[in-house]
Amino acid sequence: MPQPRKLNVELGERSYPIVIGSGLLGGDFDLSGYLSGTDCLVVSNETVAPLYLETLKKNLANNNVHSINLADGESFKTMASVESVIDSLVRSHANRDTTVIALGGGVVGDIAGFAAACYMRGVGFVQVPTTLLAQVDSSIGGKTGVNHPEGKNLIGAFYQPRLVLIDTDTLQTLPDRELKAGLAEVIKHGVICDAEFFAWLEANMTALIARDADALAHAIQRSCEIKAAVVSEDETEKGKRALLNFGHTFAHAIENCLGYGEWLHGEAVAAGMVMAAELSDIDQADRDRITALISLAGLPVAPPDIEADKLLTAMEMDKKVQAKQLRFVLLNSIGDAYLTREFSKARLNEVLQRGDGRT
Amino acid sequence: MPQPRKLNVELGERSYPIVIGSGLLGGDFDLSGYLSGTDCLVVSNETVAPLYLETLKKNLANNNVHSINLADGESFKTMASVESVIDSLVRSHANRDTTVIALGGGVVGDIAGFAAACYMRGVGFVQVPTTLLAQVDSSIGGKTGVNHPEGKNLIGAFYQPRLVLIDTDTLQTLPDRELKAGLAEVIKHGVICDAEFFAWLEANMTALIARDADALAHAIQRSCEIKAAVVSEDETEKGKRALLNFGHTFAHAIENCLGYGEWLHGEAVAAGMVMAAELSDIDQADRDRITALISLAGLPVAPPDIEADKLLTAMEMDKKVQAKQLRFVLLNSIGDAYLTREFSKARLNEVLQRGDGRT
Repeated sequence: MPQPRKLNVELGERSYPIVIGSGLLGGDFDLSGYLSGTDCLVVSNETVAPLYLETLKKNLANNNVHSINLADGESFKTMASVESVIDSLVRSHANRDTTVIALGGGVVGDIAGFAAACYMRGVGFVQVPTTLLAQVDSSIGGKTGVNHPEGKNLIGAFYQPRLVLIDTDTLQTLPDRELKAGLAEVIKHGVICDAEFFAWLEANMTALIARDADALAHAIQRSCEIKAAVVSEDETEKGKRALLNFGHTFAHAIENCLGYGEWLHGEAVAAGMVMAAELSDIDQADRDRITALISLAGLPVAPPDIEADKLLTAMEMDKKVQAKQLRFVLLNSIGDAYLTREFSKARLNEVLQRGDGRT
Repeated sequence: MPQPRKLNVELGERSYPIVIGSGLLGGDFDLSGYLSGTDCLVVSNETVAPLYLETLKKNLANNNVHSINLADGESFKTMASVESVIDSLVRSHANRDTTVIALGGGVVGDIAGFAAACYMRGVGFVQVPTTLLAQVDSSIGGKTGVNHPEGKNLIGAFYQPRLVLIDTDTLQTLPDRELKAGLAEVIKHGVICDAEFFAWLEANMTALIARDADALAHAIQRSCEIKAAVVSEDETEKGKRALLNFGHTFAHAIENCLGYGEWLHGEAVAAGMVMAAELSDIDQADRDRITALISLAGLPVAPPDIEADKLLTAMEMDKKVQAKQLRFVLLNSIGDAYLTREFSKARLNEVLQRGDGRT
C-alpha cells in the first residue's frame, strides 16, 4: 500500500495537515493524535453514517465517541441543524477538550465546523470529507456556516480544522453525478492558476471518471495544494482567495434561480466557468479547451434556460456584491485569473442569454 | 471639556482603541471613521434605545443607519435574538461593508457581537457600552455569545470590535443597583493585579457611588487598561485570561442555583470574590480589606442561603471545569492572583456553607 500523501495548510499557529490516501479511515492513519482530549462527537448524515461510521469508530477505539446523524441534503444546512449539533454536545457534557469530527460531504462539514466554532467559543475540529467536492474544496480553508432563507452561506465563521483526513476509498461509493460535480472544482483549480495541471486533467479525465485510484489521488493532492496555497495567503478572503470564486458568481445565480438542489453546486460551477471564460478577454482556443474539458467530465457547458434579467438580478443580490458593484473573476489565459469590477456589460448580457434549456 | 482618554487593546492586526469620555456619543468623537462603509445596524434594547439612540444617530448623520431594539434582559440572550439581528441585517441588504454597532449593556453587546461575527462570516463591529459592567468588562476582549438552556455563554465566538466607545454620561441614567454591580468587576481588577488601584478604590469608593464623573472615568480607564493588557497576552483564554474569572466559579454557581436574573452578575461576583478570598491562603488583613471594600460598594459579601452540595454540583457543571476537575483563581495577596487545581476541599466546603440567607 502506498504511503499517504501529506501536505500542510500554512496558517501560523493555526496550520494543519491534509492527509490523502487509501485505508486511512479504518486505521492506517491514527486520528487520535489530532483530538484535544479523549471525547469526540462525530457529525455525519443518514447516507454516509451507515457506510463509514463503524469504520471510523474502529480508528477511535480508545476514545469516548458520541455521534449524531443529520438529514442528508443542502436544505438541511440551517441554523436548526447547527443547534441540534450543539444540543448533542451539551447532552454529552462536552467541554473545551472535546473534538468535533465531520464525516461526510460539504454540508456536513459546514454545519459541524460552524457548531465546533460556536460551542464554548471554539472546540477542536477535524474534517473527514467523503465526497470529491468536499475533499478538493469545502473541507479545506476554514469556511464554515449555513444558509439563511434569503441567501446561501449568510451565517458562518472562518474556523480552521486541526486535520483534514481524505480517505480516497470513500469515493468508490460516491454516486456518479456527485463525482463529476466534484471534478468541476478540480478543473477550476487548473483554470485559475495551474496550466500544467489543466493539461494533466485533459490527459487524465477519462481515468478520473473511471475512478482510477492513482489519478484521483493526484487530482485531489494538486487541488488541495492549490487551495491551501491560496488560503495561506489570504485566509479571510480580503484579496487573492476571491480567485477561488471563478465561475461562482454565475453559479450562485443559476442555483438561486433554479432553486437549490436542482443542479448540484459543481454542475452550476461548470456552466459558470464556461460563462466566465466567455466574459474574459482570452484566446478562443483557451475558451474551447475549457469548454471541452468540462464537457469531457460530463458537466454542463451552458446555463439552464433562465431569462437573462433574472440571472442578473440574482447576481446583484449575491453576497459577493460589495458596495452594490458586481465583481468577476476573469482570465488572462488558462492558469492566470484576476478579480475585477471592469467588464463589458454588453458581453455579460450575451453570456447570460446562452441558456440551452437543460434544467 | 477634558480630552477623551484613549488606550489600545493590542492584538496585532486586530488591535483597537477604547475611547473614554463625556459627550462622545452625540458627536464629540466622530464614529464614522470606524465604520467599514456607509451602512450600519445599531443593535439596542427597549430600555436604552429611548435614552440614547437619537443621540447616536446624530453622530452618524452621514451614514445609512438601520436599527433593531431587542427585549431587555439576560433571558433574551438566546440564539433566537441573534437570528433576529441577522434577519434584520438581511432585510436591510447588509453586505460585508456593513458595521454592527452595539448600544447597550453586556447582553446587547454579546448578542450584537456574535451576530456580527456570524453574518457573512464576520462584518465590522463597534461597541458602545452604556452600563458600567459593560464599560469595564464585557465590551472589551472580544467574548461574544449567548446562553443555551443548559448553560451560560455556551454558544459564541471570540470576535473583536473595531472600537469601544465609552461615553461616561450614560452612567447618569443607570439604576443604582446596576452601577454597584459594575463596581464588582472594577474591584476585581484591583484584587487580581493592581494593589495600588485597589487602594485608590478604597479611598474613592464613596465618590464612585456618588457618580463623581472624574472618579468614574479614572476607574473605567484603569479597569480597561488591566483588562486590555490581559487580553493582549491571551486572547482566547488559554492561560492568563482565566485570572479575570476571579470569583466567577462561585458566582456562576450562585447564579445557576438562584436562577439567572435573581442576583445581578456583579452581585454574584462580589460574593464569589469574598468566597475566593476565603479559599485563598492569604493574610486575614487582606481578606478583611476585600470584604470591606465590597461592602462599602453596597454589594453582598456572602452567598445566598443555598445548600453547599447544590453549589458544588453547579460548579462542577460549569464549562470552565476542564477534564472534570475544578479550577479556581486564588490569591497570594491583594494584586497577585493565580490559577490552580490545588485547593483544600475541607476549606471549600466551609466556604460554601457561609450563605447568609439573603436572596
